[in-house]
Amino acid sequence: MRTVEWDFDTNAVKLIDQRLLPGDFKIVSYTDHQQLAAAIRNMVVRGAPAIGATAAFGMALAAQRSSANNLVDLKADLLQAAQVLEAARPTAVNLTWAIRRILNEVADPHSSPDELRCKVLALAQRIADQDVEINRCMAAHGADLIEDGDTIIHHCNTGALATVDWGTALGVIHTAHEQGKRLHVLVDETRPRLQGARLTAWELQQYGIPYEIISDNAAGYFLHAGLVQKVFFGGDRMAANGDVANKIGTYMLALAAYDNQVPAYSVVPTSTIDLSLEHGGLIPIEERDPVEVLDIQVAGQPVTPTGAFARNPAFDVTPHHLLTGIVTENGVVFPPFIEGLRRVVEKTNLDV
Amino acid sequence: MRTVEWDFDTNAVKLIDQRLLPGDFKIVSYTDHQQLAAAIRNMVVRGAPAIGATAAFGMALAAQRSSANNLVDLKADLLQAAQVLEAARPTAVNLTWAIRRILNEVADPHSSPDELRCKVLALAQRIADQDVEINRCMAAHGADLIEDGDTIIHHCNTGALATVDWGTALGVIHTAHEQGKRLHVLVDETRPRLQGARLTAWELQQYGIPYEIISDNAAGYFLHAGLVQKVFFGGDRMAANGDVANKIGTYMLALAAYDNQVPAYSVVPTSTIDLSLEHGGLIPIEERDPVEVLDIQVAGQPVTPTGAFARNPAFDVTPHHLLTGIVTENGVVFPPFIEGLRRVVEKTNLDV
Repeated sequence: MRTVEWDFDTNAVKLIDQRLLPGDFKIVSYTDHQQLAAAIRNMVVRGAPAIGATAAFGMALAAQRSSANNLVDLKADLLQAAQVLEAARPTAVNLTWAIRRILNEVADPHSSPDELRCKVLALAQRIADQDVEINRCMAAHGADLIEDGDTIIHHCNTGALATVDWGTALGVIHTAHEQGKRLHVLVDETRPRLQGARLTAWELQQYGIPYEIISDNAAGYFLHAGLVQKVFFGGDRMAANGDVANKIGTYMLALAAYDNQVPAYSVVPTSTIDLSLEHGGLIPIEERDPVEVLDIQVAGQPVTPTGAFARNPAFDVTPHHLLTGIVTENGVVFPPFIEGLRRVVEKTNLDV
Repeated sequence: MRTVEWDFDTNAVKLIDQRLLPGDFKIVSYTDHQQLAAAIRNMVVRGAPAIGATAAFGMALAAQRSSANNLVDLKADLLQAAQVLEAARPTAVNLTWAIRRILNEVADPHSSPDELRCKVLALAQRIADQDVEINRCMAAHGADLIEDGDTIIHHCNTGALATVDWGTALGVIHTAHEQGKRLHVLVDETRPRLQGARLTAWELQQYGIPYEIISDNAAGYFLHAGLVQKVFFGGDRMAANGDVANKIGTYMLALAAYDNQVPAYSVVPTSTIDLSLEHGGLIPIEERDPVEVLDIQVAGQPVTPTGAFARNPAFDVTPHHLLTGIVTENGVVFPPFIEGLRRVVEKTNLDV
């Protein structure tokens, strides 16, 4: 199944509960946009494209559940739902992007509340379907950058689970593997939520791609040893100049790649590019509950002392000069990025 | 108590079992150098200076336990013990350094096996006592680099637990705190063994120094945000040019400090400086059991998929150009390091 799906039998949004993987594969259903916003906040679903599609379906839920019997009231309910869903997580722009697309649909003239309900659901479904098509396109462009025999460092999870299906950076790796290229992936475990050790390792096992999990702080060792040919990661929001906010640790990884002349690529759909922000310093960075850092056990024993303190920024910004290229569904953008990013975003806007 | 102690009542080496901290404070006794070598390998005791002193006491144990009744046989037993202890861990040079000091003593003329046994124990005790004196000297030199109000990132554990007492980099921070400087420490958790989250946080709590634990991969975020004034870490082996092998992750941390013009200091006793190696590429890097990376639980649940693979290099090399200064017991060395490092090592050799 897809990471995010609309269930037409029950009019519910179904998510794979990613917090339980790889131990348990459990599907949870949501019939209420407020519960769904909580699921985004608590990372039942995560990954910029996946939470974009989830939020779009959240708008469809809000439309279905609204008791409004006129267009004015229904639109008011949808605006309120948009605020709840947008507030769930601040950094990934896909959430805002998907909700804005729905709100544009809401603003169009409609003959009845039920027609609007229908249109919102159809658009949410289209956003989800397009995500898969976009990822396939990105993967095809990105796979050209990978050579037979490459060892690749990958950060966080950017696979099928981070999107509706197929993935961004991990989708590129998956496609290269399907093309018959022999690959080896060094999987950053990605503290504190361990999306690499949990989810990326699990996906790679299923795809039959050889991998080894490493501590995030070991990437520099392998890069310096000349054992790595490429670095791939996704992105949660990219500014107009190519600075990219991505999962915490990406900046240090990109620095180490740069220091060893290993190419580093950010793989992002154009929906992740926020041309309204001139540079990465303007991207809001989410700081999450310190318990995510503190609640760790080894061999069943707690690690941190009782009453310990922690900080937990969930993202950092990688400056564009550390990127070799940016892979989008409309092609790979190379430096200087400003013009190229504007071009790929314009192409998407023309296509929509 | 000290991290490593000789118990004169039982003729045993006592160690704090650091694997159980901070949950349990347990002292273990060793009466056999082979068990003690295993304790070093399994990280019951860790930290370059601490394992140096432990190995010295291991030689004293071997001398006590040897049934040799003539000097030739006793010396042969001691040479064999030296091999066992030296093989326990390859990267930190303090192990070799301490054992060599004992073997020099063994090579001197002695009147009887019992006199040699006595001399070996006395020298081991002196190595342990000197470690504390050296750390106090380093701390005094290093504390001059710290200003009131500094926020410091610290990697791994370099405190009392990493040495016989007081510590290296954490000793510097402790001394600055005792001088009345207001400090805040961002504690790298230091995957995979989590010495920061386990031991450094625990020590800082006891010293009353404010701290917060961070994921190793978050250091770049705080450095880039301008929230950090200094970076301090220890060292396991430093080459003649100042390249330093230290706990995995130090290289990426030093890179991020350098990229943000934040001074980074390695705090090492001269016993950690290996002038026989021209550069850091010649330092042997220990790779440990992948289970240390894989065996992690969050909220009581395993994280990695069944049958997952991992790599686990325990150290990396930070090139000297990323270091602002090197703190030793004979003063702080600034670039160019080659001449300065030779000078501080020579001073130690004259003093011994």
